[in-house]
Amino acid sequence: MFKLTFLGTGGTLPTANRNPSAIIINRKGELLLFDCGEGTQQQMMRAKTGMKNLTSVFITHYHADHILGIPGLIQTMSFQGRTEPLHIYGPRWIHEFVNILLALGYYKLNFEVKGYELQPEDVVERSEYVVKAIKTDHGIPSLGYVLEEKERLGKFDRERAIELGVPPGPLFSKLHSGKTIFVGGKEIKSSQVVGPPRRGRKVVYTGDTRPVDTIVEAAKNADLLVHDGTLTHDLLDWAIEAKHSTAKEAAEIASKACVAELMLTHVSSRYSEDTKPLLMEARSVFKNSHIAKELMEIVIPYQD
Amino acid sequence: MFKLTFLGTGGTLPTANRNPSAIIINRKGELLLFDCGEGTQQQMMRAKTGMKNLTSVFITHYHADHILGIPGLIQTMSFQGRTEPLHIYGPRWIHEFVNILLALGYYKLNFEVKGYELQPEDVVERSEYVVKAIKTDHGIPSLGYVLEEKERLGKFDRERAIELGVPPGPLFSKLHSGKTIFVGGKEIKSSQVVGPPRRGRKVVYTGDTRPVDTIVEAAKNADLLVHDGTLTHDLLDWAIEAKHSTAKEAAEIASKACVAELMLTHVSSRYSEDTKPLLMEARSVFKNSHIAKELMEIVIPYQD
Repeated sequence: MFKLTFLGTGGTLPTANRNPSAIIINRKGELLLFDCGEGTQQQMMRAKTGMKNLTSVFITHYHADHILGIPGLIQTMSFQGRTEPLHIYGPRWIHEFVNILLALGYYKLNFEVKGYELQPEDVVERSEYVVKAIKTDHGIPSLGYVLEEKERLGKFDRERAIELGVPPGPLFSKLHSGKTIFVGGKEIKSSQVVGPPRRGRKVVYTGDTRPVDTIVEAAKNADLLVHDGTLTHDLLDWAIEAKHSTAKEAAEIASKACVAELMLTHVSSRYSEDTKPLLMEARSVFKNSHIAKELMEIVIPYQD
Repeated sequence: MFKLTFLGTGGTLPTANRNPSAIIINRKGELLLFDCGEGTQQQMMRAKTGMKNLTSVFITHYHADHILGIPGLIQTMSFQGRTEPLHIYGPRWIHEFVNILLALGYYKLNFEVKGYELQPEDVVERSEYVVKAIKTDHGIPSLGYVLEEKERLGKFDRERAIELGVPPGPLFSKLHSGKTIFVGGKEIKSSQVVGPPRRGRKVVYTGDTRPVDTIVEAAKNADLLVHDGTLTHDLLDWAIEAKHSTAKEAAEIASKACVAELMLTHVSSRYSEDTKPLLMEARSVFKNSHIAKELMEIVIPYQD
């Protein structure tokens, strides 16, 4: 299971149909949240994600539309009896932010909220995956994130193993995990039946940003790039001033990075009636482009 | 126009269908907000209330589900170009709250947010109405609010005025506003054609509270009482512990205060499938009881 759900895809101003920014990823049952705009807890309820397995929140920057859902979320999780700590990662200012968060209103939290300040290129290491911070350009301290699974074991050639006289069972696992075994006095090496390690799945989320080379670099061959696509390219001046990207610019990044799929998010309220102009523009540059919308789910399969 | 719209009617934990607490009143075009839970700005968009004419927010207490919508709301109003100050009233702690509010995230507010601390019985005086703070009982500093229009001019008896020889026109207005006039040398007093002053409309919102006598007193003959109705009476122990009211208790308050209509709000998530138990219980005590729900509108007419 590797499922990304868009909880909030609106621009700076929410609309009746688009919430402020939030994306949740369910990876093998663990939940990771990327940004947490106002209303995120309710969107999680609508998406039926649950909250118990949320371990970490990754904040791209401290504009209101990316963070205001956190106080309510942690309050609700506390009411639900959570005792495990919640890890919140973000660019410079995270400690001040967490302090303010905990001072807002009458809270009785039964668990710890831990803030971690990340710099570009910093890596949060977990047993099966990493989350890497990327330099972005939004005029204030900001980060994008790469969620990438570590390499998996190579493909196990079951037929070849049987040919070599290995009986199905525990010896298969030994070979698969890289060990050499002996069957009837004959040495059989893992490399004889196991292919090269296979790459894990990779998703990149930019948060709000101008298009930058560091994203191209970080998103190389990603399964999915979720990029700021606030405006159409006729409003480039505005995008430059507000430090956002146009659909065309996002598609150019996707194309350069050879990603499998591009999702545009942080859609300006000016497209609330019709997102086709954004979509057509992006597709003219990068064919597999889409516009994110509320509660849309994307399941990322292994590529091999 | 005197229209109350429920923006959030959920209990402490929102659900997919019930937002945290917020009520907006449109009185002759001016908007007054009572509590402002997370997601209120988006609910205002869904209710098409606009934001420009919002002058004041009245907070009942500082639990997260009553206040977390304020930061996003003021940020959005600022983006929309607001320059008029916003007045926020609440019980003890309002100044700390406003300070924290303004420190949360990268704000660029173009207008002033003014906090005012109210004590029970304090009155906010406006030209045509008052908002009076009521003592409630929620275990932390808390207030309920009475919004009451000042007395209106009495009914003008147009036929009687014509009988007395007054020509329709500006003299009618003079008489109506209390002045004495002379027509053909004859004195005509206002009291000859104008009835006694008529009471204004009156709405009471309790916020979260145990049932208390101060509400009975404050809600006397109100057009509408919006009362905490979190739980059914079989869960009275829980209501006492959490400092909320049961539907039965709220209905008893409504009955004692002789209000015209009771709306129960702050509905616990345990009734998200079916609110009938709350409704039946309230109606067994006070017939004109209802359960609030999202985007429900109540227009309050003049009673005479």
